[in-house]
Parts: sequence; structure tokens; C-alpha cells
Amino acid sequence: MIGQTVKEILLENEDHFLVDSENVATLQDTNTLEHAFLVLTNIGYSRIPVVDRDEKLVGSISLSMVVSEMITTKEIDPDLLAIKKVSEVMDQKVKCLQQPFDIEKTLNLLVDANFAHVVDSEGVFKGIVTRKEILKAVNHLVHELETRYHLENK
Amino acid sequence: MIGQTVKEILLENEDHFLVDSENVATLQDTNTLEHAFLVLTNIGYSRIPVVDRDEKLVGSISLSMVVSEMITTKEIDPDLLAIKKVSEVMDQKVKCLQQPFDIEKTLNLLVDANFAHVVDSEGVFKGIVTRKEILKAVNHLVHELETRYHLENK
Repeated sequence: MIGQTVKEILLENEDHFLVDSENVATLQDTNTLEHAFLVLTNIGYSRIPVVDRDEKLVGSISLSMVVSEMITTKEIDPDLLAIKKVSEVMDQKVKCLQQPFDIEKTLNLLVDANFAHVVDSEGVFKGIVTRKEILKAVNHLVHELETRYHLENK
Repeated sequence: MIGQTVKEILLENEDHFLVDSENVATLQDTNTLEHAFLVLTNIGYSRIPVVDRDEKLVGSISLSMVVSEMITTKEIDPDLLAIKKVSEVMDQKVKCLQQPFDIEKTLNLLVDANFAHVVDSEGVFKGIVTRKEILKAVNHLVHELETRYHLENK
């Protein structure tokens, strides 16, 4: 369990944890892989969330998952991207958080993923929490802790 | 400045910080982008280090940087990858650490990058430190701190 004081210092940065869905590039499950390829290449992120027409989170997809689909045993064929949809290739096992953030769960999810998806109680995509923002909070914690407190052996 | 006790608990995981170069996929600066494309797609990492023939670190390259080179205004043309070399496209501004690790610098670098490169004093590539391993050390820290110590306001 994470102690109360450590939790409080980590959460002093909580306002910055969520990158709002308005500022996150997403794909729709019905988009073609060709569209996904162009979006992922343009934005320079390696993986982005996939939503359905109701803005509900349904998966995530990486550039590497898309380009794998254009590699055949004989050649690299970009035309193959036009005939497949994002829903056929995306990763459906997405890790999700809800607000208010459980800092223990958040830190845990981010050991294995570059970002965690945030959804509301209906599953609607609200944004992401990135390792970058959590590492900023961690930097704040490790610098503040012994400035504010004496540590005494239990 | 990071306090001494916090630093010590973080460094209890130090043995796991370095992913040794033997276990890191790399590219050579003289490889073609076609080769880089196949390696990056196969391993599923979005960015990997680039070394020269003496194993010295000279840059890093991402899948997105490679595939951008096959997009023209008219089409997606994989043949363009055969005529360019990794050295023409790679990012030469790589962030580096040396051993023994300065935990302050390590945490700082990893706010903005998925991994930091580790080199020896000659610039030879020794491996990487990933956000994954650092976040494991952070998890250890936040769970241990108030189990081991009473925090008293200064």
C-alpha cells in the first residue's frame, strides 16, 4: 500500500495527469488501415486509442501493427492497407482508468504501457494518462519528500 | 535535490536498470531504411538505437521516421526505402547516461523519452535504461517509504 503522505505529494500534480480527449489523436474502428497509417505517421506517436461512433473506447492501434499488414512473404505492398479496417487489427485489451485516479493502479498500469486510457462509467473515452506526466509527479515527489520531512526509522 | 534515503531506496533496484546491449535490437548507420523497416516492424518497438561499425552510439531511429520516407504527395512507395540509409534519417540528438547511474539525471531524461541510452567513456553503446524499469523502482519506493519510516514535518 502507498502511504498517505506519499500519495498526497504525488497527487499535488493530479490536475496535469489527464490529457483531455480533445487533445488526443484517435482513430475510429471503421477507418481503413491506410487512413490509420497516414494519421500515425503524421502525429509521430507510436500508438493511439480507437473509438467507435459513440466515442466509446474499443481498442488501441500502433504503427507497427498497421505496417505489419503491408508485409507479405514477397514484398512490401501498401495497397493491402486499403482493404482492411482498424477494427480487424487493433488491440482490444486496453488498460483503463476512471476519475478520480487511483494512484496505486495508475502507477501499476504505467509500468507496462506508455499511457493508460481514461473512460467514464459508460465507457466513453475521456483522455489518457501518460508516463510523461506521472514521471513529472514522481520527480516532484522525490525532490520534495526530504525537503519537507524528517524520515525516522520505524 | 533528491534526499539520501529516497535515493537509496530507488537504487535498491539499480541492478535491473540496465538492459544490456546484448539484449537490445540496434541498427547500423549504414543499413538501408528497408532493412530498418523490417527490423522495427518485427521487434514491435517504436524506436531503437543506431550504432556505427565500432559499436559507438550515433543516433536513434523510429518506425515513424522510416515510414515517413515512403510517403510522397501522390502515393505510398516502399521502393524509396531501398535507396536511403539510416544515417540520413536518424535522430542524432540522443540522450545518454553513464554508469554508475545518477538517479536525478536518469529520472529527468525519462520524463521526455521512452528510454535513455547508456554509453561508456569512449561512447560505446552499453545498453538502455527504460521507463519500465524506472517505474518499477518508483513503485518499490512509494510502497516502501512509509512502511519503513515515520515522516515528521520539518
